[in-house]
Amino acid sequence: MALFLHISLKMWQEMAKYGRKLVEHGLVESNFGNISVRAGDKMLITRSGTALDEITGDNVVEVDIRDTSSLDIIASSETVVHREIYRKTSALAIIHAHCPYAVVESLLSGAGKVILPVDSEGQYFLGNIPVVGGGIGSRELAENLADSLSGQRGAVVFSHGTFAIGRTLGEAYIVTTQLEHSCRIKYLYELAKVKQ
Amino acid sequence: MALFLHISLKMWQEMAKYGRKLVEHGLVESNFGNISVRAGDKMLITRSGTALDEITGDNVVEVDIRDTSSLDIIASSETVVHREIYRKTSALAIIHAHCPYAVVESLLSGAGKVILPVDSEGQYFLGNIPVVGGGIGSRELAENLADSLSGQRGAVVFSHGTFAIGRTLGEAYIVTTQLEHSCRIKYLYELAKVKQ
Amino acid sequence: MALFLHISLKMWQEMAKYGRKLVEHGLVESNFGNISVRAGDKMLITRSGTALDEITGDNVVEVDIRDTSSLDIIASSETVVHREIYRKTSALAIIHAHCPYAVVESLLSGAGKVILPVDSEGQYFLGNIPVVGGGIGSRELAENLADSLSGQRGAVVFSHGTFAIGRTLGEAYIVTTQLEHSCRIKYLYELAKVKQ
Amino acid sequence: MALFLHISLKMWQEMAKYGRKLVEHGLVESNFGNISVRAGDKMLITRSGTALDEITGDNVVEVDIRDTSSLDIIASSETVVHREIYRKTSALAIIHAHCPYAVVESLLSGAGKVILPVDSEGQYFLGNIPVVGGGIGSRELAENLADSLSGQRGAVVFSHGTFAIGRTLGEAYIVTTQLEHSCRIKYLYELAKVKQ
Repeated sequence: MALFLHISLKMWQEMAKYGRKLVEHGLVESNFGNISVRAGDKMLITRSGTALDEITGDNVVEVDIRDTSSLDIIASSETVVHREIYRKTSALAIIHAHCPYAVVESLLSGAGKVILPVDSEGQYFLGNIPVVGGGIGSRELAENLADSLSGQRGAVVFSHGTFAIGRTLGEAYIVTTQLEHSCRIKYLYELAKVKQ
Repeated sequence: MALFLHISLKMWQEMAKYGRKLVEHGLVESNFGNISVRAGDKMLITRSGTALDEITGDNVVEVDIRDTSSLDIIASSETVVHREIYRKTSALAIIHAHCPYAVVESLLSGAGKVILPVDSEGQYFLGNIPVVGGGIGSRELAENLADSLSGQRGAVVFSHGTFAIGRTLGEAYIVTTQLEHSCRIKYLYELAKVKQ
Repeated sequence: MALFLHISLKMWQEMAKYGRKLVEHGLVESNFGNISVRAGDKMLITRSGTALDEITGDNVVEVDIRDTSSLDIIASSETVVHREIYRKTSALAIIHAHCPYAVVESLLSGAGKVILPVDSEGQYFLGNIPVVGGGIGSRELAENLADSLSGQRGAVVFSHGTFAIGRTLGEAYIVTTQLEHSCRIKYLYELAKVKQ
Repeated sequence: MALFLHISLKMWQEMAKYGRKLVEHGLVESNFGNISVRAGDKMLITRSGTALDEITGDNVVEVDIRDTSSLDIIASSETVVHREIYRKTSALAIIHAHCPYAVVESLLSGAGKVILPVDSEGQYFLGNIPVVGGGIGSRELAENLADSLSGQRGAVVFSHGTFAIGRTLGEAYIVTTQLEHSCRIKYLYELAKVKQ
């Protein structure tokens, strides 16, 4: 138990670190988005309404990955999506943010399409970025996203935000920043190119 | 009295916290905008010219909500607007900021119109955003805004800035960030869509 | 002498505070721009090449306002401009920054023209913003700017950056943020308006 | 040895300082980009995958400049490029960042072309900015960049990012911020100019 508490402490401290980074770099407005990490058949996820730049041990909650939990009611409304991703992929950490340029590019592409990066890092590191449809916290979105993330590190939910996965939160954070960077470069480039 | 001082202390500390967040995230230039919280028939509001990232107990002032106060002269020039909102709505906290994309969208829409978010979070959380007309600190603006905020969490004053309400400053801050996020997504999307 | 040292200490600490704010809010790249405050017939000005977010007592220098000083050689290359402004206006503090949207608007307007704010705060607080021509650190620029700032709180040097004045650095900082805010709102609004 | 350790300590502390500044000002996403400093025939360079805002003595590595080293395998994948620049130029410090507007301008110009600044500081301080082609970490890129940086303080790799050199990291940082500033001003100006 003491060991578990120790692991859990380290886990939410990592969540707090990357939550602060996300808000500081404008990748999410403080009270939107959510973060989780997997530990065996459990995941630690931010509570519904948590300000990501103010995560403490008190606003994360542990729920089961295999089945719905009684704590689902206070966990993020996207818990169903995180759960499905952990079931279908090898992810050990998930970051959901509202990166502005990624949302704009999803609107310009449409659900079911892909965003093709024009910067070399995005082409190499991300490849084509899937744009996934489905209502916030819905079963449909959960399944679409989990399918997309079986073969990709990151995806954009149409008109909503990014989901990024990794073996650690550090990896999922890198994917998040690269998604936004690639979408921003593409947006600015194509806006100016059309004009000329 | 000691109890009141304690409440008052907690109140301006909350005001200071959200003032700093507003400035750090570019939602207001430091010496513009204003913040208030209601306590019964009184409100605590920032003094005129206060830098929102430097709020202390010395640059907030307590005025009456039912009637004008002798301290109105040193309080924010928008005090008349805050007072009217407290009278006509259930708000317990108000944030007025100069969010840039919200101001731009108000110019593109016009006073008396609404801004329709294109991101799913904005559609769900804010609905249509009213654009309200009236001079800074005027009776007309006070009444228009208080009417709009009876049915909405946030509104944009034409060519000027956002007003957001909540039961707490935390809630009013969330509304403010979402107003700017939705206006930014809409702006960037529509700018690129027209070109294509 | 002890008194003077004390005043001087307070002066560069204020310079350091606003230098940090300018860099943090993206109003100037750290090693460009400059800041000065007047004390009688002297001014304290940042040395040439000083990073504005790292001002200490060691990288400010005191020079004469009435005449050139032997220390001019290590002072900011814009010293000649600051000196002329202090001679011809009631300014007690000057901030020169490279606000990006202000520079872009100066390019779109042209030297000798004015930028007309479209946001209500800019219209009320700044009025029409003069765009001034002349080479960096030149006599011509010094005279043009000093003339413009006799009747205005702020001006933009064509293709270069902003100059803002006040009785205190706090006032000059407010003018700087408002110049950039108004230019950004105008830029974004006119870019989208033309498209529609 | 103690002396060397002392020098090395000062070196990575400088690297840490400018790594933080780069990330804080949005000039690079935290886990991309790289930084090096030269000391005689050696250079200290960030390890592959290092978050630039979290540089410590443990994630920098010392490699030979004249020849490949056994440590190349854990050093930045751009080590080959840094090495070639140190061989062919007088640089003592190199910063590679993913400045967004510089990348966009490289896409609009094309490899082998130059970006002409429209702001006076960029024209004076940088002159024409070369856009260099070649795959990430390739021999071709290394040679193209080293050639370009023999006569320039900074260059942009097509679709990828900036390389800036100096006698110190402070100088290379100034070049980096000026590259991005000039590319941003040029982008915004030309986008609006075409419309009018």
